[in-house]
Formats: sequence, C-alpha cells, structure tokens
Amino acid sequence: MALILVTNDDGVHAPGIIALFRAMKDFGEAYIVAPDRERSAAGHSLTLHRPLKAETIRDHVISVNGTPTDCVTLGINKLLPRKPDLVVSGINRGGNLGDDITYSGTVSAAIEGTIFGVPSVAFSLVADKQSHYDTATFFAAKIVAYVLEHSLPYDTLLNVNVPNVLRPDIKGIKLTRQGKRMYENSIQETFNPWGEKYYWIGGGRTFWEHGDEADMEAVQQNYVSITPVHLDLTNHSALSHMREHWPVSEMLEGPDEKI
Amino acid sequence: MALILVTNDDGVHAPGIIALFRAMKDFGEAYIVAPDRERSAAGHSLTLHRPLKAETIRDHVISVNGTPTDCVTLGINKLLPRKPDLVVSGINRGGNLGDDITYSGTVSAAIEGTIFGVPSVAFSLVADKQSHYDTATFFAAKIVAYVLEHSLPYDTLLNVNVPNVLRPDIKGIKLTRQGKRMYENSIQETFNPWGEKYYWIGGGRTFWEHGDEADMEAVQQNYVSITPVHLDLTNHSALSHMREHWPVSEMLEGPDEKI
Repeated sequence: MALILVTNDDGVHAPGIIALFRAMKDFGEAYIVAPDRERSAAGHSLTLHRPLKAETIRDHVISVNGTPTDCVTLGINKLLPRKPDLVVSGINRGGNLGDDITYSGTVSAAIEGTIFGVPSVAFSLVADKQSHYDTATFFAAKIVAYVLEHSLPYDTLLNVNVPNVLRPDIKGIKLTRQGKRMYENSIQETFNPWGEKYYWIGGGRTFWEHGDEADMEAVQQNYVSITPVHLDLTNHSALSHMREHWPVSEMLEGPDEKI
Repeated sequence: MALILVTNDDGVHAPGIIALFRAMKDFGEAYIVAPDRERSAAGHSLTLHRPLKAETIRDHVISVNGTPTDCVTLGINKLLPRKPDLVVSGINRGGNLGDDITYSGTVSAAIEGTIFGVPSVAFSLVADKQSHYDTATFFAAKIVAYVLEHSLPYDTLLNVNVPNVLRPDIKGIKLTRQGKRMYENSIQETFNPWGEKYYWIGGGRTFWEHGDEADMEAVQQNYVSITPVHLDLTNHSALSHMREHWPVSEMLEGPDEKI
C-alpha cells in the first residue's frame, strides 16, 4: 500500500486537489497536506520567521497556514505516519510551463519532495474558467501508476501539464523539455487614493519560442506534456567552457590597499 | 558606461548591498532597487495580489515593498532609465549553496534578470556574524569586470559564494557545480499560549555530499566558488531515457465510463 502526500498551491479547498486526492486513494493511503488558502506565485519559499499551525479539518486532510513547500516539509517529517512513497502536487488551475515554473508553488512542492528523496510529480491543468479536472485525473492516475512501479530518475521530478479538453480530444502524451517564454511582463501603473504612484505586476502579453519538443507546444497541440525537471541547476556545458576560458588565477591579483 | 541594477533579499539598508553598490560605481552608473526589509527565503516569488510602492530614499537608491524578484522586474521595466547591462544581487549575508539556491531570494533576483536577457550575478558571503564584505567586494569587482566584457552563456547566471575570511586567506577561485545537501531539515515543535501545537521550521543539522567540484567543498577549502546556473531545468539525459522506455501510447487507454 503506497502512502501518498497530496498538496497544491491553490489551497486545501480547491477543486483540483480534491479531484487529485480522490484519484490517489486508488493507490493506497493518501493524505492532503495543503495551504489553508491560495499561495500562488509563492515560489519555493519556506516560512522561517513564524511557527506554523497544522489543523486536521477532515479525515486525512490537513490544512497548514504556510506555503506549499512548508506543507511538504511538515508532511514528510512530522505529519504523515511515515515517509511517503510519493508526493503529488496539484491539480493546479492554470499551466506551469516554461520559465514560469521557477515561480510555481505547484512545482516547488514537487522540488521539496525530491529534495527529501521522495518521487514527486506536479500536475497542472492549462485552464482558467471551466476546468476539465476529469481529464487531468485520468492521466494523473496513469502517470502515478507508472512512477510507483518504476520510480523516477535521480534528483528529478515530473512537471505534468494537461490541456483543458475532454479526454477523447487529447491526442497523446509527449515527453518534453521546458520551453522558453519570451517575456513581456506587463506592469500597470496605478495610484492610491492620495495620488501616489504604485505599480501592479501582471497582465501583459506572452510569446513562446517555437520548437516541437517544448512543453508549451505540446499542450497547444492537445498533448499531455511531461517534463523531467532536474534539481541540479548547474549548466554543465557552460562550466566546461568557463574552465577553459576564465582567467581565474589572474583574478586574485589586486592592489593591497583595498584589503 | 555600464548601467547596473543592484538588489538583494536582506533589504535596502543591509551592509552587504551598500558594499556592493559602492563597488559597482567603478563600472558606470549603479542603481539600488531593493526590498524595503528582509525578504530571505522568499524564493522566486512575484507579488501579484497587490500594487507595489517604489520610493527613492537616496540618490540612485530605490526601496520597494516587495520581493527581490519584484525589484528586478520593476527595475528593468520601469524604474531604471534603460534596460541595464548587468544585474547583481547581494552581497548576501550567508551562503547560497547546493539545493538551497532554489529557496534563495538572492539567486532568484539573478534568475529574473536572466529571464529578461540581462547578464546577472548573485553574490553571497558565507558568514553569519563578523562579515568580511571587503573580501567579497574585491572578487565581485573582478567577476563583474570580466562579465561586462565577455557576457555570460545563454540563459545562465552566475552564483558566487565567497568564504568569510580576509583576502590573503583566499586560496583561489574555483568554477564549481551545484552541490547536494543531505537534508536534515529540523522542525521544532512549540505551543501557543493556549497550549496548541505549532511547528517551527529551522535549525537542524546539514550534511553535504563530498566531491571536489561542488560549490560547498570549494568554499570550505577557502576558495571563491562560481557556479553557472541554468534556467533550463530539464533533465535532458532523463528525457532521452524516458523517451526510450515510457509506454506513453498505452497510457491513453482506459475505461470510457471514467470520462
């Protein structure tokens, strides 16, 4: 019987996490440990400056007044009966694609699980309004069955994005790389009631690089996208190149008076 | 004349950012755009749910009531006279090494600069109390001089960690890979005045994998560590392996009644 930790960044009451929790019960014992409210764009943040409250609000459902990363840390180390066999995060309402995954609370939760050595998968539905969670849970179950049997590559989580269509309209599953967003991160200027200028980050147009193997392209073509995401962020080819070219020994030299 | 954006996650008044700002003035025009207070462990988070206030508190020094990522976004797109030639973040008081960089506000600021196509470097001093910022600024200047002349590999930032010793005690500079922390992320149990249990994340012992090329090992041996960090988190070798082995076409099959 697998023990599965279910979390998200939309909060413990979001329809996506309820759908995922139900799907996970087929594989063993599932627990929700999730933020008490929406924590979108929380990035991979840990709450260190205040204590956290963990409240069991229903059987196997625990609400934490912290971030998704807090929930995974607490869940693995304190709240679950033992170290879980799997961490699943989602189903996020909205895609987590390209460079945006560095902001994503959904993906961050899977990063935290991976840091603790637990195979971890982030699920997102590329939707805004009417959301086909049934499509996402169908593929979540397929992927989880495979991961529970075969585990995952070392230090690597899966970032799964599901197009928001009915299941028969899904063309297939593509194993993808993280795409690149050409950013036009709009910032709106606004004023407070006393006429002082403020800035509000959001809106804006986005452009995506093209390329057949990218996560975004797969989703746009109605494929489920699965990207293996590595915890080692080192650019190894750049490292080799730098080792040949950077004059690091010269960089030690300098006027003594600056010491 | 280079235009340089200076930020951090310790806040606009931290000694590390003042030291870095002074060092950057030798290279052209420098602006501080930094959080109004400490935003450690903020991860790569953007503030989307409220407007942000940017206040010029001294000449070329702007305080923002948001995260390091907010500061870079606003700085590049709104506050500086043009797109900067370089983003530098730090000097953080405390190392940003191994997997911990995914939490780091200091590194996140450099990620954001890189997303906008600006060469970006994160600087950290591996210190807690008495801090040798002079050592860090000496090497920051050397590295910035080189980066301004040669730029950086595509989609890649530098994560620099400086040992907290006097400059003559620095043995050299090592180009390193991101190390791996063997986590024992302690969580303290505590109680509120009404006897309810709370959890406080922090403390705990840490273990590091050994390995001559890792960031942590270099710093422990009194070398300055420079790690090239890639924005593409795809595990490409895992992707190739999965493409050979995952039975993705079989995963489309399932009972129709679940639709």
